Amino acid sequence: MSDIQFDIASLHAAYRGGLAVGDVIATIYTRIEAADDPGIFIHLAAKADLLVEATALGPFDPATKPLWGIPFAVKDNIDVAGLPTTAACAEYTYWPEKDATVVARLKAAGALVVGKTNLDQFATGLVGVRTPWPIPRNAIDETLVPGGSSSGSAVATARGIVSFALGTDTAGSGRIPAGLNNIVGLKPTVGALSAAGVVPACRTLDCISVFALTVDDAYRVFSVAAARDAADPYSRDIAVQPLATRQPVLSVGVPVKADLEFFGDTAMQAGFEASLAMLSRLGCRLVEIPFGDFYATANLLYEGAWVAERYAAIRDFMEANEAALHPVTRKIIGGARNLSAADAFRGLYALQGYKAKLAPVIASVDLFCVPTAPTHYTTATVLADPVETNSRLGTYTNFVNLLDMCGIAVPTGKRGDGLPMSVTLLAPAGCDALTAMLARDLHAASGLPLGATDWPQPGLQPAAQPPGDGLIDLVVVGAHLSGMPLNGQLNQLGAQFGRATRTAAAYKLYALAGQLVPKPGLIRVADGGMRIDVEVWRLDAAAFGRFVAAIPPPLGIGTIELDDGTLAKGFLAETAGLSAATDISAYGGWRRFVARGKDMADQSEKRQDWPAGVPI
Amino acid sequence: MSDIQFDIASLHAAYRGGLAVGDVIATIYTRIEAADDPGIFIHLAAKADLLVEATALGPFDPATKPLWGIPFAVKDNIDVAGLPTTAACAEYTYWPEKDATVVARLKAAGALVVGKTNLDQFATGLVGVRTPWPIPRNAIDETLVPGGSSSGSAVATARGIVSFALGTDTAGSGRIPAGLNNIVGLKPTVGALSAAGVVPACRTLDCISVFALTVDDAYRVFSVAAARDAADPYSRDIAVQPLATRQPVLSVGVPVKADLEFFGDTAMQAGFEASLAMLSRLGCRLVEIPFGDFYATANLLYEGAWVAERYAAIRDFMEANEAALHPVTRKIIGGARNLSAADAFRGLYALQGYKAKLAPVIASVDLFCVPTAPTHYTTATVLADPVETNSRLGTYTNFVNLLDMCGIAVPTGKRGDGLPMSVTLLAPAGCDALTAMLARDLHAASGLPLGATDWPQPGLQPAAQPPGDGLIDLVVVGAHLSGMPLNGQLNQLGAQFGRATRTAAAYKLYALAGQLVPKPGLIRVADGGMRIDVEVWRLDAAAFGRFVAAIPPPLGIGTIELDDGTLAKGFLAETAGLSAATDISAYGGWRRFVARGKDMADQSEKRQDWPAGVPI
Repeated sequence: MSDIQFDIASLHAAYRGGLAVGDVIATIYTRIEAADDPGIFIHLAAKADLLVEATALGPFDPATKPLWGIPFAVKDNIDVAGLPTTAACAEYTYWPEKDATVVARLKAAGALVVGKTNLDQFATGLVGVRTPWPIPRNAIDETLVPGGSSSGSAVATARGIVSFALGTDTAGSGRIPAGLNNIVGLKPTVGALSAAGVVPACRTLDCISVFALTVDDAYRVFSVAAARDAADPYSRDIAVQPLATRQPVLSVGVPVKADLEFFGDTAMQAGFEASLAMLSRLGCRLVEIPFGDFYATANLLYEGAWVAERYAAIRDFMEANEAALHPVTRKIIGGARNLSAADAFRGLYALQGYKAKLAPVIASVDLFCVPTAPTHYTTATVLADPVETNSRLGTYTNFVNLLDMCGIAVPTGKRGDGLPMSVTLLAPAGCDALTAMLARDLHAASGLPLGATDWPQPGLQPAAQPPGDGLIDLVVVGAHLSGMPLNGQLNQLGAQFGRATRTAAAYKLYALAGQLVPKPGLIRVADGGMRIDVEVWRLDAAAFGRFVAAIPPPLGIGTIELDDGTLAKGFLAETAGLSAATDISAYGGWRRFVARGKDMADQSEKRQDWPAGVPI
Repeated sequence: MSDIQFDIASLHAAYRGGLAVGDVIATIYTRIEAADDPGIFIHLAAKADLLVEATALGPFDPATKPLWGIPFAVKDNIDVAGLPTTAACAEYTYWPEKDATVVARLKAAGALVVGKTNLDQFATGLVGVRTPWPIPRNAIDETLVPGGSSSGSAVATARGIVSFALGTDTAGSGRIPAGLNNIVGLKPTVGALSAAGVVPACRTLDCISVFALTVDDAYRVFSVAAARDAADPYSRDIAVQPLATRQPVLSVGVPVKADLEFFGDTAMQAGFEASLAMLSRLGCRLVEIPFGDFYATANLLYEGAWVAERYAAIRDFMEANEAALHPVTRKIIGGARNLSAADAFRGLYALQGYKAKLAPVIASVDLFCVPTAPTHYTTATVLADPVETNSRLGTYTNFVNLLDMCGIAVPTGKRGDGLPMSVTLLAPAGCDALTAMLARDLHAASGLPLGATDWPQPGLQPAAQPPGDGLIDLVVVGAHLSGMPLNGQLNQLGAQFGRATRTAAAYKLYALAGQLVPKPGLIRVADGGMRIDVEVWRLDAAAFGRFVAAIPPPLGIGTIELDDGTLAKGFLAETAGLSAATDISAYGGWRRFVARGKDMADQSEKRQDWPAGVPI
């Protein structure tokens, strides 16, 4: 059983093939034992409880429960009802009555909580060593730090103990540990996932993140978890776009060479250059961008204002239990005690200045690519110099939430020394799908095994059929079909061909009279309807709007039922406009009618009583 | 000459008739002398300089210079090159090298700066008495406070010394003095006017405001001044909509009676009730809204966080020159010294909580109407109790910028005791035109003279013809009509009301069966068609496209023939969708059908054979 691949595609395929969820649960505990790392979990679910939960899922049903039987771990600053929340500080422990909103959504989708994972205390750190629990060991190389603050979640995922894990990310805690453990770290747009039930670090910047073995898995979890939540005032309506086919050429901003910083790690530098070459091979156009203002923004995060958010989050606890804090954490957060409210606002003003200055820079490319971390550190090095090493790890992560960007850390290869190479793709808020679409291609191109396992990558999930990218489906019936006289109008509006299909058996097609360009009219009928051949084209909202505005009577745009039961906007005719029209439904479609050589002149000469419109 | 009306329409008409700008300048100084109020201006432009500037304008040319020869005053916390900026604190004085962005734009449009006006020091106050300069006298009743902080600007406008004046507004400084001096105070969406060149009060909330004698004047000045400005990081792209014809029925939120507070001023209470009656007569539908959360939001402004912004703005100056501050100002701003950065963030979190909670409340109506001020105070009363009276004056203003709303204070009448009555219309960010469109109707209905003069109101400027730049006309027939349940969808898409009209006599209207929201279907018929009441709304192509894409069957968008023979896109129904529908054409329109109290339940219970769509 221990060879069951835990990526969601493989696990669901195995379930479909008859694998029992009890065997999966047994495997989880076998792997935990084999990992022999007491630093990963702070609290583990009891095997018996997990079995009860799994049984309650009923038979395998991925259609209603897209995460049916999928085991996951939860960073221990996120509430799971029935398990304590510690934030890696024993004295802080409380027992939440309910799940964090995101945990509840994942459970409802069939996922199973295996346990709560270790972290840099109060999610303050990028190293993974600032914990009173044992330090989790990097899954790839035990001498290295696991990265943090979501250390245990990343290691549990990389070791294949769980299919995915939740982290949180304020300064990079959802990306750095992914980069150091050869897994995917999806840091959503702030507000896309509810932060209700999360111990705050910086409430204005916090978000829940997803660690997974593949981009498809991370994005599936994100899609299930994302929703506006009244319980989190920072929650936002961020539309979750499907992972459709990405546009073939993307412009990708990268730091100009002089602004790249690897702190002497030439293997990471070479690995990043190789990653950029992969992007080029994938059709990306690299654009070098000066990074000084991004770094200056990053520096704001630990210089003043935002440290005070960390203090605000635990002020009462800290003032009563100062000795309970990890010494490094205590020193960092305690630094905020002397910051004044005026200091906080000066920090906010400085950020607003960088936001305004960088807005056009960010808008100048489709997305950005940066190293996830500038270097790897051994645990010994970090313990010897806990603050400076931590600060260096955040070089490419600290500015991201401040600038309201989303990102995804994705493995791109092994460096010359065999250690993991990872880049992070960044884009403006709401562009989570865009970063994921490119990241999955990068990961596939890397050919890497998953995490610290020898599991091969499963094939990519087929690209979702749009419409989520804001495009609107338009069903065309006659003169706008491919190769027909008015098809060029669609091309001029930048429309994309979707597919050829048929309507439901509920329509009649008429050859209209009195048209400059011969064209048909489609009508839904209560009885005697036929299936009619149509094509689906896709336009953005503005193009669709202009197209609709130019359609002359008696045609208009209504809702058409297709053969597969779906609905889409498309051409219909007004019944009153058919007075002189001929029923051609028997042909099954306009193209076949035209091909029969029907004499269109007959139709053109008929007249009808209709106000003159602009002929389309 | 002293009878020249200074509202822009009258003054431009006079210029067109041959009035010399030199005569206007002479009139300004005559009126200043006549006012005999040394508290209005802190610095006055020299008459000779003003004449030189006026001469440089060239011949009267309102087409290129929409404010040609229009005199205005500038609150003395806004930079005018060549004049000192004091913020009503002599020791703070500096001589700016360039105009504030807004001043530069107004000058470029032909307006002439008459002088810099008095204010509550550092724009902290709503009373107008917190100044080391003489206290400006209320223009209507000398015993009353002028209101603040933009005291001098309001009084100069009310006395007809200038056509308009710039104020600033953080807590209500652009509205309260307007309300107390019988003039219009337009407080734009924060970020619509650049704050570059303004002495900050609360940088996250500050905006420049406009005092004028009429709504048309205030909006014209706003339109000229508004522009994104790279020099102000808080500047935003806020589209300035033209003052087109407003939709006939607007829903207006008003505080529930129990939440109204007049501090015993029954005349103000009666005046407010009379103002609401005016709104009803203007076709508004009043909706009572509990105001507790608005007041709780307002309280945040002087409880903690945002006072620290005022301190941050002048910290270095204040620490070096504490004695230079007005005693009340010193006490208020000094209170922020002990606020920590954690306090500031706690304030920001509290605000975010109220924002999230109030967002659906604010979206539930088109706009809000509140008293501008709850009462009038004499100067003696305010001097005796400077903080509590000030706080009371801000009852209906303090929450507005915190909630990112725009507003306009507009005179609605005289109270029983002859003192000015004013209400403020409020709407979400970007809806400045909407508030102004209703405010101009209210002001016209009041029949009041302008400010403290006996000048009659000039006629309203003709409603702007909405620009034909790519907007698409949409004919709505039922649930999207003004005041109907789905009308909000049009507002959310930024649609503008075009006109109310009828179709050609070629249509039938049906009450559809099985709709969540009752709605009709319009069908063109060959015989027996009727004229049906409709409204034409205007949307840009993308909004129109999104709107069409969301229409559920059996409705769609086709071409409708209007009563005047023109054609426009609009709602039609599929004939096949009318199987269970009732012909209501005889009513002549959906609004009349609904008003007849037709039992909609009949319709809802009928079933029809139709594919399920997302109900719109």
